[in-house]
Amino acid sequence: MTRGASCFMSTEKNFSTSGLWLIGLGPGNIDLLTLGAVEAIKNCKYVFIEGYTAHLQKNDLKDIQDRFGKWDILMRGAVEKPDELLQLASQESVGLVIIGDVLQATTHIDLILRCQKLEIPTHIIPGISITTLIGEVGLQAYRFGRQTTIPYSYKSYLPTSPLEVILKNKKNNLHTLVLLDLDPTGMGEKIPQPMSPFVAIDILKSMCEKLQSEGEPMIEDIGSWKAVLCSNLGTNNQQIKYATLTQLSEIELEGMHCLIVPDSPHELESLALERWEID
Amino acid sequence: MTRGASCFMSTEKNFSTSGLWLIGLGPGNIDLLTLGAVEAIKNCKYVFIEGYTAHLQKNDLKDIQDRFGKWDILMRGAVEKPDELLQLASQESVGLVIIGDVLQATTHIDLILRCQKLEIPTHIIPGISITTLIGEVGLQAYRFGRQTTIPYSYKSYLPTSPLEVILKNKKNNLHTLVLLDLDPTGMGEKIPQPMSPFVAIDILKSMCEKLQSEGEPMIEDIGSWKAVLCSNLGTNNQQIKYATLTQLSEIELEGMHCLIVPDSPHELESLALERWEID
Repeated sequence: MTRGASCFMSTEKNFSTSGLWLIGLGPGNIDLLTLGAVEAIKNCKYVFIEGYTAHLQKNDLKDIQDRFGKWDILMRGAVEKPDELLQLASQESVGLVIIGDVLQATTHIDLILRCQKLEIPTHIIPGISITTLIGEVGLQAYRFGRQTTIPYSYKSYLPTSPLEVILKNKKNNLHTLVLLDLDPTGMGEKIPQPMSPFVAIDILKSMCEKLQSEGEPMIEDIGSWKAVLCSNLGTNNQQIKYATLTQLSEIELEGMHCLIVPDSPHELESLALERWEID
Repeated sequence: MTRGASCFMSTEKNFSTSGLWLIGLGPGNIDLLTLGAVEAIKNCKYVFIEGYTAHLQKNDLKDIQDRFGKWDILMRGAVEKPDELLQLASQESVGLVIIGDVLQATTHIDLILRCQKLEIPTHIIPGISITTLIGEVGLQAYRFGRQTTIPYSYKSYLPTSPLEVILKNKKNNLHTLVLLDLDPTGMGEKIPQPMSPFVAIDILKSMCEKLQSEGEPMIEDIGSWKAVLCSNLGTNNQQIKYATLTQLSEIELEGMHCLIVPDSPHELESLALERWEID
């Protein structure tokens, strides 16, 4: 394996060579594209967009396509069994645009490792990720514990680990970032359907009932927990709301959402949260 | 307090109005500036750079100054007692450039809250932050526990909480991002002196001795822990090394560093880490 094969744009800008450029798009707002991303998008001979680990809203996708042209979408099979993609990248400059940052998902790290094994040059252009964008909420970065994701329920199987992560963080006085699934099929081949706040909070409540039925020490009614619903962060449709989980579950808004479950906010954090309270 | 006063660039681009633009610079590499940051830097009537929560390397600062001109540096006093800055922002468009992202430090959230109280319009342009850049190491985002910072020791006072955070994360099978202090004076008024790997690891070892002397259950020799040293991430001088803490403490390299203490890496994580092993 070639070591340290990945490198930064500014040290190697030759798009006439072959290789794979992983291009972080950020949240989808053109203003949050980096100069390096724009350069790679414009200069790679082939540009694809990865379409299953995140999702762009229609208006953002339109703005981007108006400016840069249409890209073919690669779904899970084409990225996780990437023979065709890597064959192309071994001969031409290939850009793979990824919504958010490029190296937050296992699947993209796997892609880099495959390239290095095949001695295909890789170029990483980081993008602004959701873990940065939640800074706007005003909670302190150092007070976040482990993050978790609520998956769509699959048949009758209901994992309780996401709620357990939140409970463990709360026990340690830490906030939790809760990401929401976007693929009810679990296959990554269909257009993503970002989970709604209603479904997410309903699943959290079911997890709570299951834990209680399994004899977990009594958990308070989680519907009364105050939490932050972050919707379409970093886009023109950004919305942040602070209320009880039950109140948040009634918010209907298209797009991608995440939840933050804060634990006993400090004084400055409380002032910051007040801005997002539902009237 | 005005609610939800902050807004995105693309919805409000009128730089002839007054207000405070918080502009995320990212790690300092021009390629990682966003289009929104470039636009705000070029159009705000006054542009300052915040100089005490992070530090640019000389060559990066030079590249940026060559392209955008010289900015006055604001140190801690001018940002935390910002009467002058806010007076100006109440009359003109004022950009405050912040290295990395803009809302990861308490001090900048406080600034936003002050603006909203004074009804000074605020505009937030997120930047790529260290928590995103560490993605390149190849450890899974969802396996990170709480982050911590190693402070310079002040007189004889040695807090042990950073090591306790690492130990607690390890107990829960989680990785830890360890940021390093950059102000030995604790006052935020002098040019930052980013802590070296040697000093950081020496302080960690002292924390370990102190915990042991206070009767903590025997901790193994932390010098033999394997960890990742990330230096100048996102810049042209980026370097990532994976080795024991004792080996890492011998690496001499100028600039900003952080450590990641992984706990029992999974298979894909181990493959990713191998790339950074010291020969």
